[in-house]
Formats: sequence, C-alpha cells, structure tokens
Amino acid sequence: MIQFNPQDFIPQLSIDSVIFGYKQKKLHVLISELDFGKHVYTLPGGFIKQNQSIDEAALTILNERTGVKDIFLEQFKVFGSSDRKNYEISEIFSTINSSEIAKSLAINKVWLSQRFISIGYYALVDINSSQANPKSWFPIDKLPELIMDHKEIVTEALIALRRNLDEKLIGFNLLPETFTMRNLQELYEAVYEKPFARNNFQKKMLSLGVLERLEKQYTGAANKAPYLYRFKTEK
Amino acid sequence: MIQFNPQDFIPQLSIDSVIFGYKQKKLHVLISELDFGKHVYTLPGGFIKQNQSIDEAALTILNERTGVKDIFLEQFKVFGSSDRKNYEISEIFSTINSSEIAKSLAINKVWLSQRFISIGYYALVDINSSQANPKSWFPIDKLPELIMDHKEIVTEALIALRRNLDEKLIGFNLLPETFTMRNLQELYEAVYEKPFARNNFQKKMLSLGVLERLEKQYTGAANKAPYLYRFKTEK
Repeated sequence: MIQFNPQDFIPQLSIDSVIFGYKQKKLHVLISELDFGKHVYTLPGGFIKQNQSIDEAALTILNERTGVKDIFLEQFKVFGSSDRKNYEISEIFSTINSSEIAKSLAINKVWLSQRFISIGYYALVDINSSQANPKSWFPIDKLPELIMDHKEIVTEALIALRRNLDEKLIGFNLLPETFTMRNLQELYEAVYEKPFARNNFQKKMLSLGVLERLEKQYTGAANKAPYLYRFKTEK
Repeated sequence: MIQFNPQDFIPQLSIDSVIFGYKQKKLHVLISELDFGKHVYTLPGGFIKQNQSIDEAALTILNERTGVKDIFLEQFKVFGSSDRKNYEISEIFSTINSSEIAKSLAINKVWLSQRFISIGYYALVDINSSQANPKSWFPIDKLPELIMDHKEIVTEALIALRRNLDEKLIGFNLLPETFTMRNLQELYEAVYEKPFARNNFQKKMLSLGVLERLEKQYTGAANKAPYLYRFKTEK
C-alpha cells in the first residue's frame, strides 16, 4: 500500500467520479468495494495533490481504476453541505484495531474524519475497452448501498449526463466508428431509461447536424438494410 | 474591519461569484474595487466557514454585496489549475508596510498566498432591486482589468448563463410580473449580445411552455397593442 502523506494534498477537498459504462444496452456505474472486514461500497474517488490541477487529479483516478485514457471527463457539481463527513469510515476505523489496513490507514484517521467538500466528475466509457474488474460495473438500477451521499452524487451525475448527451455525444466515444440509427437509439434509451419513438428520434438526431450518412449496412437483404452513420469530424 | 480567523474557514478553497445585472437593455457584472493604494478589481468572493455549506457561503457573499435575497444562485464551474495563486495580492502585501489595512490583513498573508481552488457561482439580478453601489456595475463589454483568472471566470459564467437561460428564465426574476414579447426579446438579446429575428424568437419562447398570454397592453391604439405575458405559476 502506498504511503499517504496528508501534507501532499489539498485538505478537506476530494474528488468523486461517477464513471458510467455502456454494456448490453444498459447503463452501468463503476463502484469500488473496500474490504475493512465490513464491506463498503463507494464511488471511485481520491484527493488532489498540491501540485496537481483538479482535472489532472480526476483523470489520474479514472486511469488507475479503468486503464482508460484520453476520455471525456467533466465536472458536474460540487457537494458541499456543512455536515459532509465520512461517519461510516470513522466508525470502521474505530472498530478495527490491529489489522495491517488499520495501521496503514490510522495516520489518516484524523485527516479523513474532517468535513470534506467533494467535486463530482462524470465520464461515460465503453466497458469493453475498460480494464476495470467486470464485477465492479453495477447496472444503474441495481447499485449496492453506497456510503455517505454517493447515491445522490450518482443521481446528480445522471441528470448532467442526460442534459449534455446531445452536445457531448461525439466526445463520449461509445459507438463503433460506423453505426446504425438503431445503435444510437439504444444508447439514448439506456441513458434515459425509457424508449423513444423511432421516427422522432431519427428526426431529432439528424437535426443535431453531427451525423454523416454513409452507405447501407450490408445485410444480404438490400432493401431492408439500414443506413450506416458516422460522426462528422470537424469540430 | 472584521477580524479574520483562518481556522474558521476551509483552507485553500474560495468562492467567486459572477453577479450579472440587467440594466438599460444591457448585461452588467458586479465588480469589487479594492483600494490598497493601488486599485485592484475583483469578482465578489469569499471563503467558506467550517460550519457553512458552500451554497450558504455563496448566498452570504451575494447578500452582503447587493442586499438581494432569495435569488437564484448557481454553481457553474470549479477553477482548479495547479498554479492558481493570487500573486497580485501577495505582491501588494509586500509593498504596503504600515497602513491600517496592511496590519489587519497581514495575519492573512500566508493564508492568502496559498494555492486556492475556487468554486464559481453565478446569479442574474435586477439591478434596480439591488442595493449595490451603481458604480460597481460594469457593462460586460467594458470590464476593468481583473485580478488572477477572474476574466476567465466571467467568460465561463456567461457560457453557463446562456446555456441555462431557457430553463432558468422564471427563477431569474428579471422581468416585471407582466411583460411583452419585446421585453423578453430584449433580455435575450442582452444576454446573447446579438439580435434575434422577432418571429422565430416568439415561436421559440412559446414552445417552451412557460408563458401564459394575457390581455393586450393598453396603449390607446388597440389594434397595434402587444399582448402581455406572464410566467405560468405551476413548477
């Protein structure tokens, strides 16, 4: 375990990341499981080094957990209620006495039991290109009980994801290079957790002006084949 | 001057508020002028007390500066580059030796010269209902030179304001209870700093579903009179 020196970090400020993954037409969330004897489920998070920007800190956390680089990662909200303290972790610390984990974490007990303001980031990644343990991806409607306000952080991240999906679609890099309108609709339906009418969806997507229509997908039955699309490359 | 006790506050974390005001069909920004012998222009900002939520801290700053209460105030971005330090204030401290201000601020010199991560909030207020010194409102295209990255904070706040204007229109409380489509268009034109085509604008505004059409405005010339509108009251 890496030695943690509190003086290297900004005090009372943390980052919590909601890393959405898209798999089997369903939205998932990357969850960390900490084993202190008692199991605790948390969002992947961390702290900000004194010589590191907040965006660098968030990217470092994402890289370490998923192996994914060059991903679109965005701040969406700061969680800063006045009583935002990690009572559960403090309680766990007080019940573990002599394990190796307890010893290595003990120096941080005072530091960690302060009030923390947390900057929420979210990302949306292709689970297939992630190196995270597949068991760490939970379907969004089957999340385990999370510590502190982490459930609320997920809820707020989902609101931000939906609000920005049209605009940030390309950056998320979730679809193969060419895809059908149906592939795109399935992605939207996963994010919004509801079905869309096919004609309206197609009309809306085309009106965004970001799609380029290519040849029809080869299926053998030419007249039923759907068109393929790709994202326009200009910014 | 109020005694400042660093231990009452979250270290290395500040709030900077971009308070937009609407006056004479033009967008303005509330700017603080600090006089240390040398004049320095900054956004209204402050720090977060240990027992205060970040939203409470931001509201307190807004109240103190403008006398405006119950206003819509929203986080929009955290500014957290690794070299974000107030070099100008540090420099000014080093040049003032014996004034009363220097003495009262001297205890904060070390505290203030640390790296600060700043949470940006923005608000849009009716300048007429604000008690701020009218001279503190600068037209957005005639801002003085601001310290640190405060100009960038204004730019980012304007992006957020434009992005959210449709959705937050009612909350901003900028128009009288009843208003004409022209009044509304002037507000949009001030925020976007560009003209809109009248017909398209009206169509778009009506499609938002937040306006209720009332009787025509009394002008004496009935057939030319514009309709009055108000915001629907359901949430």
